[in-house]
Amino acid sequence: MNNGEFERIARYFAPLANEAALGLTDDAAVWLPPTGRALVLTLDQMIEGVHFLADDPPDCVARKLLRRNLSDLAAMGAAPIGYLLTTALRATTPEPWLAMFAEGLRVDQERYGITLFGGDSTSTAGPLMVSATMIGQVAPGAAWRRSGARAGDAMFVTGTIGDAVLGLEAARGNIDDPTLRFRERRLLPEPRVGLAIAGLVHAAIDISDGLVQDVGHLCAASGVGAVIEAGLVPRSAAARAAGDDWLAARLTGGDDYELVIAAPVEAEPALRAGCGDVAITRIGFFTGSHQDVIVRDAAGAAMSFARPGWRHF
Amino acid sequence: MNNGEFERIARYFAPLANEAALGLTDDAAVWLPPTGRALVLTLDQMIEGVHFLADDPPDCVARKLLRRNLSDLAAMGAAPIGYLLTTALRATTPEPWLAMFAEGLRVDQERYGITLFGGDSTSTAGPLMVSATMIGQVAPGAAWRRSGARAGDAMFVTGTIGDAVLGLEAARGNIDDPTLRFRERRLLPEPRVGLAIAGLVHAAIDISDGLVQDVGHLCAASGVGAVIEAGLVPRSAAARAAGDDWLAARLTGGDDYELVIAAPVEAEPALRAGCGDVAITRIGFFTGSHQDVIVRDAAGAAMSFARPGWRHF
Repeated sequence: MNNGEFERIARYFAPLANEAALGLTDDAAVWLPPTGRALVLTLDQMIEGVHFLADDPPDCVARKLLRRNLSDLAAMGAAPIGYLLTTALRATTPEPWLAMFAEGLRVDQERYGITLFGGDSTSTAGPLMVSATMIGQVAPGAAWRRSGARAGDAMFVTGTIGDAVLGLEAARGNIDDPTLRFRERRLLPEPRVGLAIAGLVHAAIDISDGLVQDVGHLCAASGVGAVIEAGLVPRSAAARAAGDDWLAARLTGGDDYELVIAAPVEAEPALRAGCGDVAITRIGFFTGSHQDVIVRDAAGAAMSFARPGWRHF
Repeated sequence: MNNGEFERIARYFAPLANEAALGLTDDAAVWLPPTGRALVLTLDQMIEGVHFLADDPPDCVARKLLRRNLSDLAAMGAAPIGYLLTTALRATTPEPWLAMFAEGLRVDQERYGITLFGGDSTSTAGPLMVSATMIGQVAPGAAWRRSGARAGDAMFVTGTIGDAVLGLEAARGNIDDPTLRFRERRLLPEPRVGLAIAGLVHAAIDISDGLVQDVGHLCAASGVGAVIEAGLVPRSAAARAAGDDWLAARLTGGDDYELVIAAPVEAEPALRAGCGDVAITRIGFFTGSHQDVIVRDAAGAAMSFARPGWRHF
């Protein structure tokens, strides 16, 4: 590292670090994990032009980085603890960019009760790149797996589906976004950590690649098929106002970071109670009679999609 | 992720993964850490053109990535367990590059007894980027800190110092490398994990930014100064053959990944015994009479350096 990097770390990241991080001045963090708990480890990176746009607000880039990782913990039913961070910034990245990025980290560290264990900072001549390794915890054996869905389980989703991809279309000028709801959901997903539904869930996945594709991942891991009723997939008021032309985009667009949950249909009231303020909607079921993900329209006909899943923009 | 990424993960990375990684097909890894041990967490990234050259062998890039992180664990006196990996490759990165990269991971996983917990793979239009988050373990309270050096401690280094920076000069065509020793040391550092010297060490740091600068970090954390006798700093036979013109480069060049250790002078025989096959050499001492890092030449005069530490190439 050069002096500029040391100064940046001391100025922007050391105030965010926890005790285990040793002030970010040692070779590594030293941390005594909670006794009798399993750790959950996940990692996501974000590259300018691939996972975020060059003019996205830097505090939102920081928060989305944390939230994407938090969403992976949420999909395992795990509670977050803290994270390690890498940044690769250009020498020309303005100081205010970094200051706002750090401020975004601070806000969401507080919001989600997580702390910074350490990291690595370097310079690049290419696109900006940031990544986080997130650590969470769960009771041993209690983590939700993608492989636990059973034929006959109902399929539930949290929140509403498809606003994030409409946010991308709005950034491209392809759709109006009068309430900025689409933009907000693209920039700041809401990871569904902290739901009180631990004992009710057979399997879960978070929607990063698009509802249809991620249900497909869950089905493949569980050895089941699924039927999704397109008309039941919840949408925001803004998406409703945008009309039905965007249905396929909403069902296959990525970046929602809502959960898909497989659970017995009888669990619905308990799931609803455990989710509190977070909406939960039954949108279909899992089946043993085929291995596909079938999406049915309002007339009951199977829909087909040009692109079943999201690709990086 | 797109289909190409799923296939690459299944083909190249899933065979490297441990049980906690759940076949790299779930949202996160779930891992029961060893009871009664502190975890040591560190993270390093490598960017093409910054930390490695575009034509460096991909297996060496993989192994150096692991070894740089292992060296951070070594500097804390910690034993390695496993790691998480990110890769950002170009769509045009040839398949054999990735195959060789994965093969490098496999070889060093076996060599150091570590396993893959999980990771994230994406595509980039910019330079290749890889990073690893490494997890190790140590007895609670036993991790070596940079802050433990005391006035009067002797300064030791492992191995030989300066071959890696000469390897960079050789890649630039500035120095002959008839035995390829310099190239080998640049491409494949030897992290000093597994030394049986736990109770003897007051403080340690690994040399990533250059001997003089990293001793400076250790001094700053410990609130002491240091004197390095340039003539005592061990060099390889190849470096000796290259002559004394390269002394300043060797003392300030980075990427050695040897350890600087602060310990009582009386500990030297025990350190030597505990290091086994790894050479350990006393090269100076720590002092309370000033806060600087003073490097003395053979005549006892203080040397000065144009660049006290390494900057990324």
